[in-house]
Parts: sequence; structure tokens; C-alpha cells
Amino acid sequence: MRHLLVHGFVAPSASIYGGLKGFYDYGPMGALLKRNIERAWLEEFVLREDNVFLVDGSLILPFQVLKASGHVDHFTDPTTKCGKCGRVFRADKLVEERLGIRAEGMGVEELGKAIKRVRCPTCGGDLSGINLVNLMFEVGVGPYRSDRAYLRPETAQVMFLDFRYFQTSLGLRLPFGIAQVGKSFRNEISPRQGLLRLREFTQMEVEMFIDPSDVRCPGFEEVKDVNLRILTRDRQVKGATDALEISAGKALSSGLLPNEYMAYYLAKETLFFTERLGISTENVRFRHLMPEETPHYSGGNFDLEVRLSVGWIEVVGNAYRRDYDLKQHMEHSGKDLSMTVNGRKVIPHVVEPSFGLDRMIYCLLEHSYTKEGRKWPWLRLPTELAPIRAAVLPLSRRPLMVKVARDVHRMLRRRAIPSVYLEKGSIGSRYARSDMMGIPYCITIDYGSLNDSTVTLRNRDTREQRRIKISDIPKELTTT
Amino acid sequence: MRHLLVHGFVAPSASIYGGLKGFYDYGPMGALLKRNIERAWLEEFVLREDNVFLVDGSLILPFQVLKASGHVDHFTDPTTKCGKCGRVFRADKLVEERLGIRAEGMGVEELGKAIKRVRCPTCGGDLSGINLVNLMFEVGVGPYRSDRAYLRPETAQVMFLDFRYFQTSLGLRLPFGIAQVGKSFRNEISPRQGLLRLREFTQMEVEMFIDPSDVRCPGFEEVKDVNLRILTRDRQVKGATDALEISAGKALSSGLLPNEYMAYYLAKETLFFTERLGISTENVRFRHLMPEETPHYSGGNFDLEVRLSVGWIEVVGNAYRRDYDLKQHMEHSGKDLSMTVNGRKVIPHVVEPSFGLDRMIYCLLEHSYTKEGRKWPWLRLPTELAPIRAAVLPLSRRPLMVKVARDVHRMLRRRAIPSVYLEKGSIGSRYARSDMMGIPYCITIDYGSLNDSTVTLRNRDTREQRRIKISDIPKELTTT
Repeated sequence: MRHLLVHGFVAPSASIYGGLKGFYDYGPMGALLKRNIERAWLEEFVLREDNVFLVDGSLILPFQVLKASGHVDHFTDPTTKCGKCGRVFRADKLVEERLGIRAEGMGVEELGKAIKRVRCPTCGGDLSGINLVNLMFEVGVGPYRSDRAYLRPETAQVMFLDFRYFQTSLGLRLPFGIAQVGKSFRNEISPRQGLLRLREFTQMEVEMFIDPSDVRCPGFEEVKDVNLRILTRDRQVKGATDALEISAGKALSSGLLPNEYMAYYLAKETLFFTERLGISTENVRFRHLMPEETPHYSGGNFDLEVRLSVGWIEVVGNAYRRDYDLKQHMEHSGKDLSMTVNGRKVIPHVVEPSFGLDRMIYCLLEHSYTKEGRKWPWLRLPTELAPIRAAVLPLSRRPLMVKVARDVHRMLRRRAIPSVYLEKGSIGSRYARSDMMGIPYCITIDYGSLNDSTVTLRNRDTREQRRIKISDIPKELTTT
Repeated sequence: MRHLLVHGFVAPSASIYGGLKGFYDYGPMGALLKRNIERAWLEEFVLREDNVFLVDGSLILPFQVLKASGHVDHFTDPTTKCGKCGRVFRADKLVEERLGIRAEGMGVEELGKAIKRVRCPTCGGDLSGINLVNLMFEVGVGPYRSDRAYLRPETAQVMFLDFRYFQTSLGLRLPFGIAQVGKSFRNEISPRQGLLRLREFTQMEVEMFIDPSDVRCPGFEEVKDVNLRILTRDRQVKGATDALEISAGKALSSGLLPNEYMAYYLAKETLFFTERLGISTENVRFRHLMPEETPHYSGGNFDLEVRLSVGWIEVVGNAYRRDYDLKQHMEHSGKDLSMTVNGRKVIPHVVEPSFGLDRMIYCLLEHSYTKEGRKWPWLRLPTELAPIRAAVLPLSRRPLMVKVARDVHRMLRRRAIPSVYLEKGSIGSRYARSDMMGIPYCITIDYGSLNDSTVTLRNRDTREQRRIKISDIPKELTTT
């Protein structure tokens, strides 16, 4: 993480005041990187799809919405408090770490029994019984703050709330999807590991609404041969950690996946993570969640996991939520959210891929980080996603050379090609700095540049240097 | 607003539950329109600038930050409550509306005297004295919610908090800017007028950090001849409402504007609103705020106002904030935020243009709305900003025609050119619907299309129809 801090990717927020745990700001490199990944995702999962539309909804939602969704009653973590030092811990995580048993799916009572065998990991004091803490941030709205509301814990609720609005305003028929990119909030008990567990984070989600009796996905044919790597339930039960390799088409026909849309999304995600983010195949897998990890209404959950130095981490959750969400909102709001399909009344089912953008950024950065072939660590970021396309370096600080370098920098910026101007240090140290920031190209202005309007273009990955005309720079940077 | 609701631009959020006042969701048309304006702004005010960088920071900020910025103590509105019906009102607005006097700058005591002459506008009851209500939403962070924090009331504080981080991670020298696009929150007493006064809204802000003894702006030369329309203080005192027309260069040299950066931004904003948003010159002006509207530390505030049916509305605030913000944070955090410039210790000054994105959207939509030349109202949105570029219409529902139309729709989406597929109703009514959504092009697939692979391309503004090849559609849609 220190590399990412120093080079302008990400830093704890409000750090001049000590900050709050679980909140980060994206710096000059990180903010553009985030936008680039977001844009790539929007292209792939919204704009290029026949029938997916974007929503941009409220972060503050009224009490009734989260009551209906179940978050008010069930979106809790079990905590325990040390009677001696006063620290609060996630009880289930503590039981897993200290006793080496799985706590997922344990009831409060069972967890209470288990926690009695554990002592405070910090001071060794006695731990309290289990206290369920709701993870939502509450806010009061209105002059007396009397309207109870919450910061949304997921972007998804907005899509359910606006389902009818989208359907009627565009006259849509099933299947269609509503997608959103935006902030969500969870008051995590122990935020940690930098970007991996945040209290404020960005999600990219699609709710695909489908007719349960006709679950054909028009785009499936195009991706059915994509190979998926699935850690099946069978393998998990046997304690195996290697994934099954199987094409999306076969995973569907063999009954491993619940429907075409699930198969479609797992294939698209595989392509996105390996081709656009450039994470190698063996570091990406889908884990079929075990029954005790799966909500009662679910028709199947598959987590896309990426291998990191800290282990396999969930980055995308895929859930076949059936009609749970729309039904809950129909019941609580009294509004009819059904559709009529060929005379049949249908409550649409939902397939939901839910991406954690901050985790994607972290995965991309960790997998780009390398010391291969040079004395400095550098980032092999895909050119398309790199926040800065080129660094512009004058060989010396002679006024004329500085002028030409600044002109080149300005020419790139005028074309909205992100560049930085680096003046300090030797050329070698500036190359190194630029590599550390993952900048794909360095443009050096030297004595020759003043005579024949050429520069040296250095490629980050190959370190190859070529002499090109200044007027050819934009073309070289955008087509290679 | 009904037009915008019906056609998928914007709708009250959580409306199936009655919702909360002051919260809106952008629908399928609005969400893409918002992204397009945001992208145009980023190009113009960040990416094309030599020295402006992006940040993407926390929405939740700790207490200390807002204490230092003055928001905890001073970000309040004066309210009054009816003793009979219990309704709460903005006291200053009520005094202005009912008594016809300016309440801006009035102290609590003076306002208290004035409000005694007013009765409840709803029921005629007695109104209470003045109660100052803080407009920030408070949230508790941590397992006991014991860390006091607020939803940020402006994006700007993040740029001040991260000033040193940006400066050191990129080794920046003055002048440089930090920009941000993101949500901010204000618990307005009386949210109203749809998108014009929201409790959750999106800002696009730049904090340009400059050396107060060397306020040259490198880009100023390029825009110094742009004509500004300024409602000067002199004219306001005289009760005049027509703006002075003056070039940015002359406005600066005559002492009307405090520095080159202010002149630069007013010129850039004029170009952005007239050329990119397409709002005509006479509907855009800058109002020099009067002394009583200006904070004590300010070196000059100029609001960009747009003329709407409800009157002139502030859409961009431009403020020369001097060193107020960095000084406050130096004092409260104990951290040194000064820079050394040629041996001098400098606390950078700040010029801040602050754009209200929701208001920009509203202005754009109102000014695009027309009934000119047709029986239906339509939106003359700039092609570059229109959320959907083309509507694809099969003349009839014959399977082959539907297939070709769906293929054309898919071809466009695959290229990430936003299109909608419209099947219902006569061609005329579909043209009308497409005009109402501001879609620049309609593509009609008819009997001829099945034989020679051509379609009819209709232009929204001219209503001209041309026969073009299917393979030429992408080029026609992206170059015209």
C-alpha cells in the first residue's frame, strides 16, 4: 500500500486530522484509474448491451425501503466487546481465527457459546456475549431530523424502486436490465486491509429482470465457449482448492449454473477480468457459495474471486435473487410491480452481478505491481486503463527545452490525453518514477528536439526507445 | 417537469413509498445525460488543462474537518415555526416574499423583528422567533456510532484536506488545481422546484491554488477576448437588470475582476454554457455579489446565473477565497500547508469555480424544450450531450423487418453508441416520442431495407430524411 500512497493512487481520507478508519480518497492517479475502469465497465455491461439502462439514484433512502428489503432487521454483524480494554470485535471472525472453525451460518446462541472459549486478542480480557449491530448509517432528514433514513448499503435497492419507472418510461419488455455505478455505505465493525474493507465504497451493479418461464439470454450464444473456472460445492466439501475448468455452455447444460443469464455474466466477467484488467486466468475463479452462505430465496450465488497476497478475495457477487426483491417491495409499498407477458401475470426474476470497484482497483494494482527486469518496482497497468498516458521530460532545464516540453505537454492535454510534466531529477530517475506510476510512455525532449522537432518515445514495458516527430505523438499514444 | 418525468429523465426517489422531499433519481435518459455533461466538463476543466488533477474523496468527513471549515458553527439557516399548524419555514425567504425587503445579511435579531410582521403563509397562525438550524446531515461512525461525522456539504473540503498529498505525490509547483465531481448533501429546510433545490446533489468543483504574488494564468491569453456579461454592483445598486458586456481582458484591466484566474474561469464558463450546453448568450450572466452577500475573507464572488421561467438562478459560484481555507486547516490540524516559492514562504490562495450539475441539467432541459414547428413538445439537446443518439424503428412487426431492426440496434450498441429500439405505435408517433426524448436521429427499417440494406435516417432538428446504407450508420451518427 505504501507504493500506492506515495505515488498518488490512494490515501486515507482526512489524514491531516487523523481521519476515520475505513475511508479513503483517490489521489491524482487513483481518481483517473477509477474513472477508466468505470468507463470500461459501463461500455461492457451497459452501453454494449441491447437492453441495459443506467440509473443514477439517491444515496439516502427512507426507512421504509430498507425495512422492506430486510436490511433494518437483518443487516447486522455479531460483535463482542472486551470487558477490560473496551475494544469491539466481529465475533464470527474472532471465532474463525482463534478456534479455526467456520462461523458462517452460526446462530447467535451457537456463536455465544463459541466466543466463551476465546479471550480478547489485544489484552487477554474477558469478552462479552453477542451483540448484533446494524451496519447501516442512519441519518435524520428534515428541519427536526424526524424523517428516518439510511445511507444505502448497496446500490441495488434503487433499481427495484425504479423498476416500474424504467419499464413504463421506455415501454420495456422482459428481459431488461437496470445498472448503476455509485457509492454505498456500511459501518463495518473492523475496517481493514485498505481498499478491501471500506465503510464508504463504490459498487457497479446490474439488476437483470427476466421472465422466469423464458430465461433466454440473447447474447449468450456469443460467449458460450468461454472457459469458466469454478470452485464447485463438491470440491469445497472435499476440501479441494483447485477450480473446475468448464465452458459456460457446458456449465449450463450440466446443471451447475441456474440459467442462461448467470452463465452469460460469469463468461462476461471472465473476459473482463482477464482481457480488460489483464489479470491472468489462474488468478480468477468463481466460487459456488455453500447452502449455509446462501439466502433462502436464492437460486444460486457465485462469487468471482481474485487471488491476492492475502488469499482469495470476493470481488464480484453474482446472485440469482428470483422474485424476492420485487415481491418484498410489492408487499410493503402496496404497489403492483408485476408485468403481463402474453396474458400471463409475471413477477420478474432478477439475476444480479454486483462489482466492488475499490476491490477491482486493488486487484488490478497488486497484479500490475512487479519488479521484473528493473531495480525499481513498477506497475504494468493496461494502457487503456492507465490514469496517465504519457510523461513529458525535458532533458535539461534550458529555457528553450523547457518551452518545447511544456508545449508538448499542453498539446496532449488540449486533446484530453492525460499527461504529466516531470522536470526534477535525472532522466533515469524520471523514467523510474514514471514506471512506478504505471505510465505507458515517456517523451523526452533533448537537444535534437530543438533542431528537428523530434522526441524520444520510450515504452514502459519493452523499454524500447524510438525517435518520432512531435506531430506524430498523439497518434502514437492513442493507437498503440 | 412532467415531461421530464414521463420521458425517463428524472423522478422523485423512492416514490413507491411516497419518498422524501429533495431527493431525485435520474432515469434512463437523465442518467446518461448527466454522465455526458460531466464528461464534457471534465474534458474542459480538468483533462485539457495543463495543471489540474482529479480527486475522488470521501462523502463522510470527520467532525474536526467541518469544525475547521466553519460549517459546524456557521452553516445554518434561520427558521421559524408556526405555533398553530407546526410547519417550519426559512425565515429569511418568508420575510423577503411577504415583506418585499432583502433579508440577505440580516442578523438573527433583525430577522426576528421582521418575522413578527409576518403570519404563517399556510394557516395564518403565529410564527415563532428565529431558530438557527444546521444544514449538515450528521452520521455516527464505529460500532457505537461514537465518532461524530457529517456528510460533506460541499466537495471542496476534500481538495483542501488533500492539498499537500497532491502537491508532494506529483511534486507540483504553483499554480495547480484539484478538481472533483461528486455528491454533496444539505438538509434544506424547504427543498422545492425539483432539481433546483435538492438535499442530495452533485457538484463539480475546481480549487485552483495560486501564488498570491504571481497570479498569472497560462491559459488566459487564449480566452481574453471572450465577451462576458456582468451584472456589476453599480448596476445592482441602481436597480438595473441588464448586464454589462465586456471582454474578459477589459474586465480584468478595468479592475472589475480580482485576478487573471477569475477572468479565465468566467470566460471558460461563458464558452461552456453557450457553446457546449447551447444556451443562448442573453440567458447567461455573471452577477457580482454585493458586499453583504460576500464572506469577509473573500476577494470577490461572481455567480453564473441562467435565466429560467422562474427567474435568474445561480448555477456556478466563482469565489476568490484567498488563503482562508488552507489557513483554517493549518490552524486546526497543526499541519503546515504552506509552500516555498523562490525562498518565500507562501500560503497558496484559492480561486474556486463550483458548478451545480443538477441545476445545469435543469437549465439545459428547460432551454432545449420547444414546441417550435411541430404539434408535440420536443427537446433540442446538443447531439454530443443527448443521452440516446438514435432510435431504431421497424416500419411494421413483420419478423424479417423486426430482425433487421434488432440487428441495427445491436450493431450500434456493440459500438457503445446509445440507441433505443421502439416498436409500438405508428411511425409518426414514434418520431414524436423520439423528439420528446431529444434523440437526434431516427433510423427506420422498411420494405426497401430488406432488399438493398438501406434505411431512412431522420434528423430531429431539420426533419430531413435521407436514404443511407446500413453499413454507413455508425459513421453518420458519430460525425454529424
